[in-house]
Amino acid sequence: MIREDHGLATILQYENVAWFEDGAVRILDRRIYPREIRSVICRNYGEVAQAIRDMVTQSAGPYTAAGMGMVLAAYQMRYSEKVRTWEELQVAAEVLSTARPTTQNRMRQVTAGCLAVAKTALDAGEDVSKAIFDHTIASLNRRYSIMERVGKNLADHFEDDSVIMTQCYGETIVGMMLRACRARGVNPKFIVPETRPYLQGARLTASVISEMGFETTVITDNMAAWAMEQIGVNLFTSAADTITIDGYVVNKVGTLQLAILAECYGIPYYVTGMPDLDMRVQDIRIEQRNPEEVLSVFGQRHTLPDVGAWYPAFDITPPKLITGVVTDQGILSPDQLASYSPLQKSFY
Amino acid sequence: MIREDHGLATILQYENVAWFEDGAVRILDRRIYPREIRSVICRNYGEVAQAIRDMVTQSAGPYTAAGMGMVLAAYQMRYSEKVRTWEELQVAAEVLSTARPTTQNRMRQVTAGCLAVAKTALDAGEDVSKAIFDHTIASLNRRYSIMERVGKNLADHFEDDSVIMTQCYGETIVGMMLRACRARGVNPKFIVPETRPYLQGARLTASVISEMGFETTVITDNMAAWAMEQIGVNLFTSAADTITIDGYVVNKVGTLQLAILAECYGIPYYVTGMPDLDMRVQDIRIEQRNPEEVLSVFGQRHTLPDVGAWYPAFDITPPKLITGVVTDQGILSPDQLASYSPLQKSFY
Repeated sequence: MIREDHGLATILQYENVAWFEDGAVRILDRRIYPREIRSVICRNYGEVAQAIRDMVTQSAGPYTAAGMGMVLAAYQMRYSEKVRTWEELQVAAEVLSTARPTTQNRMRQVTAGCLAVAKTALDAGEDVSKAIFDHTIASLNRRYSIMERVGKNLADHFEDDSVIMTQCYGETIVGMMLRACRARGVNPKFIVPETRPYLQGARLTASVISEMGFETTVITDNMAAWAMEQIGVNLFTSAADTITIDGYVVNKVGTLQLAILAECYGIPYYVTGMPDLDMRVQDIRIEQRNPEEVLSVFGQRHTLPDVGAWYPAFDITPPKLITGVVTDQGILSPDQLASYSPLQKSFY
Repeated sequence: MIREDHGLATILQYENVAWFEDGAVRILDRRIYPREIRSVICRNYGEVAQAIRDMVTQSAGPYTAAGMGMVLAAYQMRYSEKVRTWEELQVAAEVLSTARPTTQNRMRQVTAGCLAVAKTALDAGEDVSKAIFDHTIASLNRRYSIMERVGKNLADHFEDDSVIMTQCYGETIVGMMLRACRARGVNPKFIVPETRPYLQGARLTASVISEMGFETTVITDNMAAWAMEQIGVNLFTSAADTITIDGYVVNKVGTLQLAILAECYGIPYYVTGMPDLDMRVQDIRIEQRNPEEVLSVFGQRHTLPDVGAWYPAFDITPPKLITGVVTDQGILSPDQLASYSPLQKSFY
């Protein structure tokens, strides 16, 4: 279990992802980490959904946050009738899983899992809240253990002097990959584009890598090509918010151009994660976020009032730019994803 | 003369570039513009050199700042002997032109011009400070008038519905290009990458475009490829800190990757400016700036202490990625630059 692993970074620690306690859900605020270590406290599932929408937690964080939101919803209904509780949980599931548009597919799997255990507990007259909590922790541990295999499969490609470029934040996968490096005794270096507007690369990815003891060099997002040319990069890797069955990667905006640049410089691009077997590229809906976030940094605006902005949260990278999809079952080429055997239990 | 043209943006206004008055040089602080409109006051030429090094002014600003620094140096020597004054002016020229490594070639042309008029004024017993001031203003006007032709040559390629992507800051050329658009009655739209770490794109380029009444959309630097794919871009353009005779463009870091992406999407890249006839690519020395600037925004650090960074101020784009070099004499292909006729008087 990850909580006993003191070698992992702060941001990976179990209780920091999202945690139900004393009738509230506490979520580490990744928008300000590591400048400040502060949590957002959610008093009902609507506030959990809002926190997900506001990107208090990102990457794999929302899967656990949604589970904890379901725990909280059940807790608040603990004195209500079964039928009312069941109705309320269904509403909570809908609200939590649709907090952000692009990841609804995965989030619905999270809440569906919670609803299933809730139904069983309700029917058996057991503590519904506790049942969902235990299920959410079990899911988190299952994800950690699957991601550990993914991390190992990727780290097998690193050498001692490898220079790896990352994109944005994949806290679990980065942590697992580095643990596998340590186990193998290899010591790659990392170049981390900062990932505006939220600077997740500089604040989160770089924090995990640095806390785990590896050399980390942050660059601004416009330095990637020059870093590939001047420093040299051996491998580019990112996580994904969706990997469609037809081989397209939906991930934090900026992934597409890094993949294009990687191809131009002959650098392989490995994306980590499991294919979303029921999604094709035409099913993707890209979330458009508030352009204000582009026109300011840390809440401070730096542009004139008439200047507009555009903020797509994600972009889509086509299969021709992807060297391999690193899964728990090994590395697949993007045209082989249909051969991936669905997990016994949902990943989410 | 530009000072009478009220249609130009604040940042292009004559007295805002760099101005000698009352024994000091006042430079608009572009590091904080337009959030705050504040000037840096330099009391001696060393402070002017420091302001250039600190990027208080950038793009073409340092050419005028260096000239005004020479004015100030002469002013402070106004009661000294000729020989001492001449020695001091030579030291000032060296200090001012070497404030930043990558642009020394052009800056030496600026200070050489100042030294030449200073020599004449000294020999004739005239006011040396005034002579350099008049020369510096005349040089600025000559640059404006040449850049007006460059701007027109580029704007001739824009249509009413053109979408133009810019890179970083070329205040004069952007202003002149937009004036030419107005004269022709065309109304292109602009997509402006923000250009971290200093955000010159968002703060300066976007301000000029918006103040001159054109539609401006800022994006973060990692959105360029997705903007090319989703919004569509008809032309990419940048200024240059150096254009070598063998067709390489040295410009604000990020230019290289935008040029690569433009080529991938079939978008022409036009660079504006005059070739540096005495420079080849092997003569380029790229300035490495303080990595602290990458690890923070507006002086606020957002990374852990052990995280490192890399900050090359410029990158080099090879001729194969350049569609045309837009000069006052028309558009040249990067392998034709030797055919450019040197200007009668130095551009700088």
